[in-house]
Amino acid sequence: MQRKDFFKGLALATVSAPIVIKALGGGGEVTAQHEAPGVISGKRYKWKMVTTWPPGFPVVGEGCELFAEKVRVMSGGRMEIEVYGGGELVPALEVFGAVSDGAAEIGHGAGYYWAGRVPAAQFFTSVPFGMNAQGMNAWIINGGGQKLWDELYADYNLVPVPAGNTGVQMGGWFNREINSLADFKGLKMRMPGLGAKVLQAVGGAAVLVAGSELYTSLERGVIDATEWIGPYHDYLMGFHQIADYYYAPGWHEPGSVLEMTFNKEKFDALPADLQEIMKTAAHWSNLWMLSEFEAKNSTYLAKIRQETDVEIRSFTPDTLNGLRKAAATVVAEAGDKDAASRKVYASFKQFQEATARWSSFSERLYYEDLQ
Amino acid sequence: MQRKDFFKGLALATVSAPIVIKALGGGGEVTAQHEAPGVISGKRYKWKMVTTWPPGFPVVGEGCELFAEKVRVMSGGRMEIEVYGGGELVPALEVFGAVSDGAAEIGHGAGYYWAGRVPAAQFFTSVPFGMNAQGMNAWIINGGGQKLWDELYADYNLVPVPAGNTGVQMGGWFNREINSLADFKGLKMRMPGLGAKVLQAVGGAAVLVAGSELYTSLERGVIDATEWIGPYHDYLMGFHQIADYYYAPGWHEPGSVLEMTFNKEKFDALPADLQEIMKTAAHWSNLWMLSEFEAKNSTYLAKIRQETDVEIRSFTPDTLNGLRKAAATVVAEAGDKDAASRKVYASFKQFQEATARWSSFSERLYYEDLQ
Repeated sequence: MQRKDFFKGLALATVSAPIVIKALGGGGEVTAQHEAPGVISGKRYKWKMVTTWPPGFPVVGEGCELFAEKVRVMSGGRMEIEVYGGGELVPALEVFGAVSDGAAEIGHGAGYYWAGRVPAAQFFTSVPFGMNAQGMNAWIINGGGQKLWDELYADYNLVPVPAGNTGVQMGGWFNREINSLADFKGLKMRMPGLGAKVLQAVGGAAVLVAGSELYTSLERGVIDATEWIGPYHDYLMGFHQIADYYYAPGWHEPGSVLEMTFNKEKFDALPADLQEIMKTAAHWSNLWMLSEFEAKNSTYLAKIRQETDVEIRSFTPDTLNGLRKAAATVVAEAGDKDAASRKVYASFKQFQEATARWSSFSERLYYEDLQ
Repeated sequence: MQRKDFFKGLALATVSAPIVIKALGGGGEVTAQHEAPGVISGKRYKWKMVTTWPPGFPVVGEGCELFAEKVRVMSGGRMEIEVYGGGELVPALEVFGAVSDGAAEIGHGAGYYWAGRVPAAQFFTSVPFGMNAQGMNAWIINGGGQKLWDELYADYNLVPVPAGNTGVQMGGWFNREINSLADFKGLKMRMPGLGAKVLQAVGGAAVLVAGSELYTSLERGVIDATEWIGPYHDYLMGFHQIADYYYAPGWHEPGSVLEMTFNKEKFDALPADLQEIMKTAAHWSNLWMLSEFEAKNSTYLAKIRQETDVEIRSFTPDTLNGLRKAAATVVAEAGDKDAASRKVYASFKQFQEATARWSSFSERLYYEDLQ
């Protein structure tokens, strides 16, 4: 795929990644359709799913299409879902409101996009130095997070389900070496959300640049650095052609949960089988997207290594320690924003601490000494 | 729960963990049933699911029950599944054959239980110094593993789906310090499967002890050490009462996939909606069980710390390096056992190497420097 094609129709992105590429086709396996469904009859539904992603957006947009197809098959054709990219039916950042109001029945996006309206929502996506995918899933699914999320979103007439995860993201593309925390001083870097506040706290200049203008801004030196997602999406954006250094890890987004939301009133009115079919398919998307991110990022990291002379580096432990200290203040402030944030953050923090102790005897040792 | 109750009815375990406890109740959330299903009619099925786990076995047996309940709701009551513990309908280690023959329509267990009959199967569970849960899921779901697994099991009239994962296990309970590889010399340790071969290669004596006799064997010094699963299940077994040291990590099982199998002939004859409902629910179980293991292990590691004076330790990097070298030979031999093993192992190994390079910039840095 050429960068030019990739950029075709590139949408405005104020918070994070929305970009447009042509639909990449399937990937997820759906049982062959030669068998007729076993359902004889039942009321039929046509629902709309609005997303914050451009149509066919790799991994995430594809996962939404696969979700819709799974639901169609599981429901014996009773539930047909049309998936819309950001801007096709409503602007990307109005997904939350559109599903809340019932303009569409389903939404897919990320909680931190609506942090301005619902500050506690970002704890259900990712915060700097927060939990990774495994931790977020354990907290939400089995550690009490889902109940708090249900309560929070019920006030907006929404039912939330975790339905995708990016895994640990990359730290970004730089045209300056970052050898210590001091090197962030004066650095003009595209960085959204709480990450921007951390960057500012260590002396950097966080800049908001739309996804469609990122390549040109970095190429012309309007910015010194930009974060995006991980090797797969970053490669498609072409940053390796214009940046010298690619730093890891994405301390600002260690495992972003992508959320599916249902209009609560309409969801509650559905028969029980269709409710369960949609929730279960959303959970399927959660694992499929994470696994697809892992598989594709492995492949594309190798491509970047082989095809380019970009230096792929890790931030030094000291640099990360400095960022962590700055993040602690920023995240604690976000967790004290309102009553809902205090409640959610308390649960998040407690789970993160418990799981960190366990993973120091499990996953951490796996990555350090087993693999 | 008292250890005595936990042991009540403890089943024979030749390969790994089957033990019996009382059913622990729900945990997974299933949409409320006040809404009638939307399905008006359709053929009804009553299927049997045989498992290698005792009824109500924490996390895993519970997950099977939740799977059956989800399928019942999603199918509008058309598919009812009765879950049997190991030994209730067929012996635990005959699950593979029973589903293959059609004595039961569904099975739940782990591929390495049938390594004697299908050597390549263990690569779809876990091998010493193999991949963790995230790697196994990415390989199976999005890295070509599922296709190889389908081919392998089709010869046995089975359709396999990943439906659970233990996460990184613990290294076991010891009444001797393990400070270096040399300390394994002469150590009598309960260790099944390929792990046993690795233990023998470094001078230990791998012993096969049934789960029901493990506590007594360790207490009386018949064995010096035993592995089991992780903090939650190990605590319920009571090992903290009779062992001095609890070592991490479980190098022999870094992320064991639990498998669901369907009788292929019967599965293929199902209508498409029920096929998709069951596969999707199995994927749901995969994520639910892993998340439940993570949440419960975090809690129970803390309990072991607080309630006992067991020393929780990590093997030294040198010790693990020695085990890794021994494992490389053992695993390569297993991967060269027959044509199917060679094909599966080649794919497994290639994916493991690619994902290891990517995770050295993502998950590894997360565990070392972010959390």
